[in-house]
Order: sequence, then C-alpha cells, then structure tokens
Amino acid sequence: MKLKIAVLPGDGIGPEVTAQAVKVLKAIAQEFDHSFQFKYAPVGAVAIDETGDPLPKETLDLCKATDAILFGAIGDPKYDNNPDAQVRPEQGLLKLRKELGLYANIRPVKAYDTLLDKSPLKKQFIKGTDICIYRELTGGIYFGEKTLSEDGNTASDLCVYSRSEIERITHLAFKSAQSRKRKVTLVDKANVLESSRLWRKVVTEISQEYKDVKLDYLFVDNAAMQIILNPRQFDVILTENMFGDIISDEASVIGGSIGLLASASVGDYFAMFEPIHGSYPQAKDLGIANPIASILSAAMLLDHFELFEEAELIREGVERSLKLNITTPDLNTKFNHISTTKVGDFIEDFI
Amino acid sequence: MKLKIAVLPGDGIGPEVTAQAVKVLKAIAQEFDHSFQFKYAPVGAVAIDETGDPLPKETLDLCKATDAILFGAIGDPKYDNNPDAQVRPEQGLLKLRKELGLYANIRPVKAYDTLLDKSPLKKQFIKGTDICIYRELTGGIYFGEKTLSEDGNTASDLCVYSRSEIERITHLAFKSAQSRKRKVTLVDKANVLESSRLWRKVVTEISQEYKDVKLDYLFVDNAAMQIILNPRQFDVILTENMFGDIISDEASVIGGSIGLLASASVGDYFAMFEPIHGSYPQAKDLGIANPIASILSAAMLLDHFELFEEAELIREGVERSLKLNITTPDLNTKFNHISTTKVGDFIEDFI
Ligand SMILES: CC(C)[C@H](C(=O)O)[C@@H](O)C(=O)O
Ligand SMILES: CC(C)[C@H](C(=O)O)[C@@H](O)C(=O)O
Repeated sequence: MKLKIAVLPGDGIGPEVTAQAVKVLKAIAQEFDHSFQFKYAPVGAVAIDETGDPLPKETLDLCKATDAILFGAIGDPKYDNNPDAQVRPEQGLLKLRKELGLYANIRPVKAYDTLLDKSPLKKQFIKGTDICIYRELTGGIYFGEKTLSEDGNTASDLCVYSRSEIERITHLAFKSAQSRKRKVTLVDKANVLESSRLWRKVVTEISQEYKDVKLDYLFVDNAAMQIILNPRQFDVILTENMFGDIISDEASVIGGSIGLLASASVGDYFAMFEPIHGSYPQAKDLGIANPIASILSAAMLLDHFELFEEAELIREGVERSLKLNITTPDLNTKFNHISTTKVGDFIEDFI
Repeated sequence: MKLKIAVLPGDGIGPEVTAQAVKVLKAIAQEFDHSFQFKYAPVGAVAIDETGDPLPKETLDLCKATDAILFGAIGDPKYDNNPDAQVRPEQGLLKLRKELGLYANIRPVKAYDTLLDKSPLKKQFIKGTDICIYRELTGGIYFGEKTLSEDGNTASDLCVYSRSEIERITHLAFKSAQSRKRKVTLVDKANVLESSRLWRKVVTEISQEYKDVKLDYLFVDNAAMQIILNPRQFDVILTENMFGDIISDEASVIGGSIGLLASASVGDYFAMFEPIHGSYPQAKDLGIANPIASILSAAMLLDHFELFEEAELIREGVERSLKLNITTPDLNTKFNHISTTKVGDFIEDFI
C-alpha cells in the first residue's frame, strides 16, 4: 500500500516521540513492502515562532493532500498564563480538527497486565479494564461563540450541539460497541444542561437501530467517580467534547502512565493520530519522554487503513518492550537510562 | 446559642441520612445547652409530587427565615431519561442556591487513616491527603441562558462569568488557604475557554493580596489526572461550577466512599449544609445509606457558627465509629447489618 503521511511534530516532546513513531512506521513499510511517504510541517508554538500562525496555510494544505496525519503535541507555558495573548498554540490544533472535520476522537484505555503495578489504583480494581472512549471533537463549548465584554469584566463561552453532530459520532460509537462488549455509556449532565438533554434524546433514538447494544447513561460527575471505582463496568463511553477531554485524561491513570495512550481523530474524509499526552515542555530534549503513545497512534493509523497485521505487530513490539522493562523512566524504576530513542529502537528492531 | 435550622430532606436516601444528622445535632444541643429549632420543608421530586414545584414558595420562605439549612439529597430517575420533562427535581436545588446567593460550595476531602484500605487507590498515594475544594456555585454554565431551537434539533448552554462572581469566591479560597497549607490551585481550561481566561486573570490579580499563599494553575483535564496520581500536592482547589462538580465527585474516591463527604454552600447571607452524594434511589429505605456525610455536614454547620468544640465532638464521634467499624455496608465488609440508624445512634450516644 502507498500512503502519504503528514507529520506534525509540534511542541515540547512532540518531535522526539513522533520521531520514534515514524521510525517504527518505516520498519513496517520495509517489512511488509509498503510505501509510506512522510512530509513534515510545523504546528503550534513552533509554527507561531516561525510564521506567526499556529496553523500555517501550508500545513493545513499539506494535511488535506495526504492520507493521514501523525500529530505530536501542542502547547507552550509562555502562552498559558497570559490571558491577553491573541494567538495560542492550541488554536492550531482546534482549527485543524475543525477544518478537517475530525469529529470523533477515539481513545482506547487498557490496563496492561505487565503494568498493573504502576497504576495508583489497586490491581484488583483495574485488571482487565478495556474501555474505548468516543469523544465528540468539533462541537460543544470548544467551538461555540466566545465573548469578552468591552470592559474585560465579563466573559462567556457557548456550548452548542446540533442533532447531526450528535448522530454521526453516535453511529461510530455503537458500531464500535458491536465488535466489542456491546455496551455504550453516554456521559452527560442532562439534569442541568439543555445540550446534554439533546444528546440523551438523540442517542436514545439511535440506540433503537442497534438492538444488540445496551445503552447506559451516567451524569459526568458520577462518571468521573465510577471510572476510578469500577472501570471494568465500561465498554464504549460516548460523550461530548469537554467531558471527553476530562474523562479520558482521568482514565489514563488506569494504564499507569498517560505516556501509553494513543488516539485517533476521524471524520468523513480525514484522519489524524496523536498521543493524548500534551507537550510536556519540562521534559523536552531530556530523552525521558515515553514514545509509546505516539507509536501506538501509528498502530491506530495502520488499523485505519485496515493494515491489521501490521498494527498488531507494532502492538506486540510495545507489549514486549513493556514486559522486558525497556521503558522510559515514567514506567521504569530500575533502569532510568533507557531513553525515548532506545525504546523506539527496540520496537523498530522487533519489527 | 439559639439556632433555627431548616431541614430539607429531599429525595431518595435524603430523609434517612438527614434524620441521623438531626439526631446528632439534638444531642449536641442537649450536651452544650444550645437551643436548636428544626423546621421541615419539601424540596425536589417529593415537592413536585406534593405541589408541582421542586422548590415551593413556602420552602424558600422558610429557608430565608432560618439561620441555616440542612439539606438531604435531590433527584429521581423518573425525570433523568425524560428529556422533555418541564419540571425537574434539580431545578429546586439550583434555584435554592441562586435565590439564597450560595456562591461558594466548600468540599473538604480527607483520607481517613482508618479507611485507607477502602479506597481503590493505593495507600501510599493517598495517605495524608487533605484537600479543600472551593467550587463556584451560582454561575457558569449551570445558570447561563439555555436554548432549544423550535425544531428541537439544536440546543445550547451559555457559560458566563463576571469579575465580581470570581472575586468573591477567590477571596474565600485564599483566606481558607491561609489557615491551611497556603496553596491555592486554580483549575480551569484557559487554553480553550474565554471564561477560564477571565478566571485566570482575576485570580492572579487577587493573589497579589495574599503574598503568603502560593498560586498554581492546572488545566481541568490534567487536574482530573493529578487528583488521582498525586492528591497530596493539593491544598485548596479553586474552580468554576461545572469543573468543581466533576472534580469533587472524582476526589471522593480518595476517602473510600462518597458517603463520607460533606459540603457547605455559603453566601453573604445564608448557608446550607449537605452531603455531596446524591439521592441514590436504589438504596432508599434499605437502611444501607451512609449517614456520615450528612452528619459531617451538620459539623460544618456548627463550624459556621463558630461552635468549634461542638463540631469537633461530632468529628470525633465519626472517627470513633469508623475505627470501631460501626459503619454501613459501603465501608463495612464484616458486619453488613449495621444500618443507617445504628450509625446515627452510635454517634448520638458518643456525644
Ligand atoms: C491542547 C488542548 C486544546 C486539547 C483539548 O483540550 O482538546 C488537549 O487537551 C487534548 O485533549 O487533545
Ligand atoms: C444534582 C445536581 C444538580 C448537583 C450539581 O450538579 O450541582 C449535584 O451533582 C451536586 O454536585 O450538588
């Protein structure tokens, strides 16, 4: 297979981890005789530094001209505590999601047997956890109108959802549940929010088309508790943008490190693959960043093109590295000299 | 001291647990020669059933005429899955908060040494945790304009904050931090939301008046992770309404049971005390509801009137009950016949 892949390494540890994913994809291409072509472009704070724009037109055009996007991370603390900044790295990511119509962010959360001890949660609570979170990614309060009054003393954000926005991701979530444990849990705040009540209504209607899947409802506050108390009760979690952001980062503690969690952001025409961890600027260039989330994002990319055998091989490589303790310091208390690159090398060699 | 206390038992397990708190307050009154007068009024689903209104005028008037309110719980599943219901139990609670100007919801989260084993989190991660969450309670997306388009296909909720709404709770949070570990963590989503940027700006300004308190910032997604990974890093958490709802329910897992967490909702003129758990309708009348959150809410009520010795005695009673395993089934694997009432009796006798 021939694939053109846009690589957007972004900020902080983004470039280091993405380099490992590219390395692994190259090994796959060689082993399976595919042709993967990689094209690089800036996004986020590095793009602001270079061009003044967190998502330069050339970057967006490149993404539109490729088959898939491999994304690193975005964000720089110099913007976070400056409420008056007009341009922010995050705008690049949000615009990319919106322009490419990447409305479904898919975040699998698994408790790896070899890592059960790393989690702050007790083994018996998490063993066997296998959740897939479907987070709506191009609607809600992230993209609704924002206002700041002229005197700067009142600010607002609008959370708005339309039926069609809810429908399309709901179908994806139910289809995914059909090939899993056949349960969808809708997380909302329907006892308070009008938009949540629309979610509940539309999702309930659509669930009628999937009689083999059970639909459950949880208020987001309760869900935030249940994910820790009893994560095994979940199969597919379906939720809106902001709740999905919170719940999926929270769920990362189950795996023992956020450095393990990959995600796919898909729409009707494009697909992007990225680790769920951020740019983690404090770790930049120290060789301690965990590349596994990025490498597993590459595996999700292969899945997307139905290269299942290839994806599986990457996952085996990852599991092997975890088993042999070839891991970065976040997971490794014994050998703290195993760097980002060495983990990448190991998985590359495995392939 | 003479106190008039409005008791609003509400729905589900509300009446059972509130009855224990009243019993304990009566014991305190007797022991310390106070005069506490209790007046009951309906709220929530029971009030809808009786009067059609989740917050009848008589209930609101009673609350305004008393010194403090003891609240049970609210909510009934018959309304949750009916997106078209015009009247909902939750409206009673929200209106009460708004009408009484209860803008600060204070939720202490502690890891009790005797209960360390009950938490899904490993002991070494939570031992010594002592967090106090300040959740803004009368603003944000809970109270902003809600719309539903005529065709029912688009719904919206507005999250709006003004400087003054942020200022008043920020002062409370910083004052509280001064008598604690002198650290405030602001939880927001300033990289995406305009309202969060206003929070960050105002809170940063006000922090200048409290030079002895350190101010930290965390994005809400990261906060949801950090609360589980390393809860001891927190002292006072300050946040807006919706994030506070999620984060505080999540944090309840640290204590081992949400049945332990009390809260105070205070404003400039009124104060209300309630367990953070909900109405838990499945447990209604089974005698298994944990009354400790309600009893500790009564202790917070006493604190509010500077009856510190009295409040302390209640807390000692609670700790004794936990130590002796005189607890409801959520905490008790040995004796599952210790009922809600028996826990209340024990603490009453202790006093
Ligand atoms: C960087 C930020 C805008 C982003 C989000 O909130 O969506 C990130 O937290 C994520 O989850 O991908
Ligand atoms: C019942 C509900 C409206 C309420 C809220 O969301 O504020 C509850 O969850 C709480 O936290 O007190």
